[in-house]
Amino acid sequence: MPKISIRGHEMPESPIRKLAPLAAAAKKRGTKVYHLNIGQPDLPTPQEGLNALKNIDRTILEYSPSQGYLSYREKLVGYYKKFNINVSADDIIITAGGSEAVLFSFLACLNPGDEIIVPEPAYANYMAFAISAGAKIRTIATTIEEGFSLPKVEKFEELINERTRAIMICNPNNPTGYLYTRREMNQIRDLVKKYDLYLFSDEVYREYIYTGSPYISACHLEGIEENVVLIDSVSKRYSECGIRIGALITKNAEVRAAVMKFCQARLSPPLIGQLVAEASLDAPEEYHRDVYDEYVERRKCLVDGLNRIPGVYSPIPMGAFYTVAKLPVDDAEKFCRWCLESFEYEGATVMMAPAAGFYTTPGAGINQVRIAYVLKKDDLEKALIVLRKALEAYPGHIMED
Amino acid sequence: MPKISIRGHEMPESPIRKLAPLAAAAKKRGTKVYHLNIGQPDLPTPQEGLNALKNIDRTILEYSPSQGYLSYREKLVGYYKKFNINVSADDIIITAGGSEAVLFSFLACLNPGDEIIVPEPAYANYMAFAISAGAKIRTIATTIEEGFSLPKVEKFEELINERTRAIMICNPNNPTGYLYTRREMNQIRDLVKKYDLYLFSDEVYREYIYTGSPYISACHLEGIEENVVLIDSVSKRYSECGIRIGALITKNAEVRAAVMKFCQARLSPPLIGQLVAEASLDAPEEYHRDVYDEYVERRKCLVDGLNRIPGVYSPIPMGAFYTVAKLPVDDAEKFCRWCLESFEYEGATVMMAPAAGFYTTPGAGINQVRIAYVLKKDDLEKALIVLRKALEAYPGHIMED
Repeated sequence: MPKISIRGHEMPESPIRKLAPLAAAAKKRGTKVYHLNIGQPDLPTPQEGLNALKNIDRTILEYSPSQGYLSYREKLVGYYKKFNINVSADDIIITAGGSEAVLFSFLACLNPGDEIIVPEPAYANYMAFAISAGAKIRTIATTIEEGFSLPKVEKFEELINERTRAIMICNPNNPTGYLYTRREMNQIRDLVKKYDLYLFSDEVYREYIYTGSPYISACHLEGIEENVVLIDSVSKRYSECGIRIGALITKNAEVRAAVMKFCQARLSPPLIGQLVAEASLDAPEEYHRDVYDEYVERRKCLVDGLNRIPGVYSPIPMGAFYTVAKLPVDDAEKFCRWCLESFEYEGATVMMAPAAGFYTTPGAGINQVRIAYVLKKDDLEKALIVLRKALEAYPGHIMED
Repeated sequence: MPKISIRGHEMPESPIRKLAPLAAAAKKRGTKVYHLNIGQPDLPTPQEGLNALKNIDRTILEYSPSQGYLSYREKLVGYYKKFNINVSADDIIITAGGSEAVLFSFLACLNPGDEIIVPEPAYANYMAFAISAGAKIRTIATTIEEGFSLPKVEKFEELINERTRAIMICNPNNPTGYLYTRREMNQIRDLVKKYDLYLFSDEVYREYIYTGSPYISACHLEGIEENVVLIDSVSKRYSECGIRIGALITKNAEVRAAVMKFCQARLSPPLIGQLVAEASLDAPEEYHRDVYDEYVERRKCLVDGLNRIPGVYSPIPMGAFYTVAKLPVDDAEKFCRWCLESFEYEGATVMMAPAAGFYTTPGAGINQVRIAYVLKKDDLEKALIVLRKALEAYPGHIMED
């Protein structure tokens, strides 16, 4: 029997999805599972998007252009303008989710063996896409104690060598909820310029910034316009994870031409998703305000609740809808498994994403979890009680000094 | 400015889509363009699929499982059974079109530098996906003169070395319309077994076989069950190219586990497409018969018409909805460009896919085109007249000896 590829072995399992079979088994036993593990928003898709779906009046569900529909790309120009991101429809390539945008960025820009610097903890699938492209992620540590702020320039420069081709950031950050400051973004800009790197910037959570601090897009940085590749997605913005519509945006014509060859090979992005996403751009301000207000409340409920549990610590996330929390346990993955396999409180348990899967440094994040606040406040409160009870009962509980 | 990757340079432009800007310019000038270049069926999507779309009653368009919905995979089991392909729902992984199934097969099974043997002419995007995975396609020539039948075993064995990992076929074939005989399939089976290779088999055109010859699926071959990876798609079967739903099917659990890691990284296949594809399985026999009968007529109309044009030769395609035809021209790509840029007859011109893009052997297919018969018979007849007139007028016309 032929062997699978080395990268097939090296590909990480998703830290978010790999415990799914245990959750399924728990549900089968009749246990209610509070899903704190996955960034699947529970808030409704905009009515405008749902209406577009209802009103599709086609007899053939045909290919769309490899770059995505022009009408959608033109409408996106106005959306980005609201965030002071000035792009033309030609700068935008529609992809099957932000995922495909990351994969195609890596395939088009990086050679096997090339290195990308990513602050860790990081969205685990960056690692998967890097392995797919034969590239190597070099992580630069940020710590929960320092609230996940970026380390000094020198730490970056220690990692930079002749194989370094890119820096990748997620801002606001998944999994930490961190928002990069202007000073940090300028620091990244200077590094990108000095070493002539690509800057891949995943900014799919720009709608969710809670601190009044400014959103500094990679596209706002002057002097590196041709180095920036913006990764975007409508998944979180409109609760449209399932339609698989994202975008890759760059002013670099050579990168676009290369990416387009990968786009042509996969023929086209999803047709129906584009129709829904285009219509969703017409969602009223009220939709965004309601969603935003809801997350503001949940964030407070979750983070306050976590920090009230003895031994638990979560910094206050500034954006997105995740936080990384430290738990008083020997090993957070063991604890997460135990919650699903061996624990329930009043018929319920919690599912969280062990944070070690978001780090590459061995041992880092071993006692941390990523928690998504995509549950109703009532459910979040109940989940917090279950978590507290689980920590009390867990055999691997570690008492604080 | 940082450089794009080597594979970004090496990726071929789609021979089917690269002339699209010329076609757009011709249309802008008011010229009607008969699209013989692309396999975009013009026949309607089944009403069952369209109804499912209309009846989607969800408030959140959420992620689906990375492997695809179980209900859809279970229903597919019955579909495959009709073709004597016995698989379980667990053997099936739903992908974003057949394209993603090919890409993930290559990523999961092939190391950089590994070789895949593919009969040429071949679907051009196999090359693109191989480059994406760092693998190398070694083509084995089939010729228009021999009707694109497979060469003897010895020709395959000449190509096999320690880097050879797989054979890839498309059956019925895109671009040639060739259908592999039982003898040819057994020959492939013996090679796969002898050298312990993967057999990637793209069988998305199984509904379209016109000769009464049996459809021999790679899944019918005994003794290589764990070597076979079946590539499938609903795009052509139901005129649903735009929903981006395909499948990767294998009895090899190790391959499935590796592929699933790539699936988890891209989170999920399109949600709405799955709902449409699942409902389309309920299309009545009549739908398939009508579509089939239509292609039978078009095939006759096109191939007879082509062979009546002086200097043009097309073998009779046995399946799919393409044929490769030899034209009396110096260079088919130049001719195709010229048709779009400099020619019209009664306000119309034709767009075809230059066949050289389906070959890797330099010079092979230089005077051939791929023609898709996805136009109404009336339009096909008009397109044939335009083609004849274009050949007469083309400065690079080559008179037969």
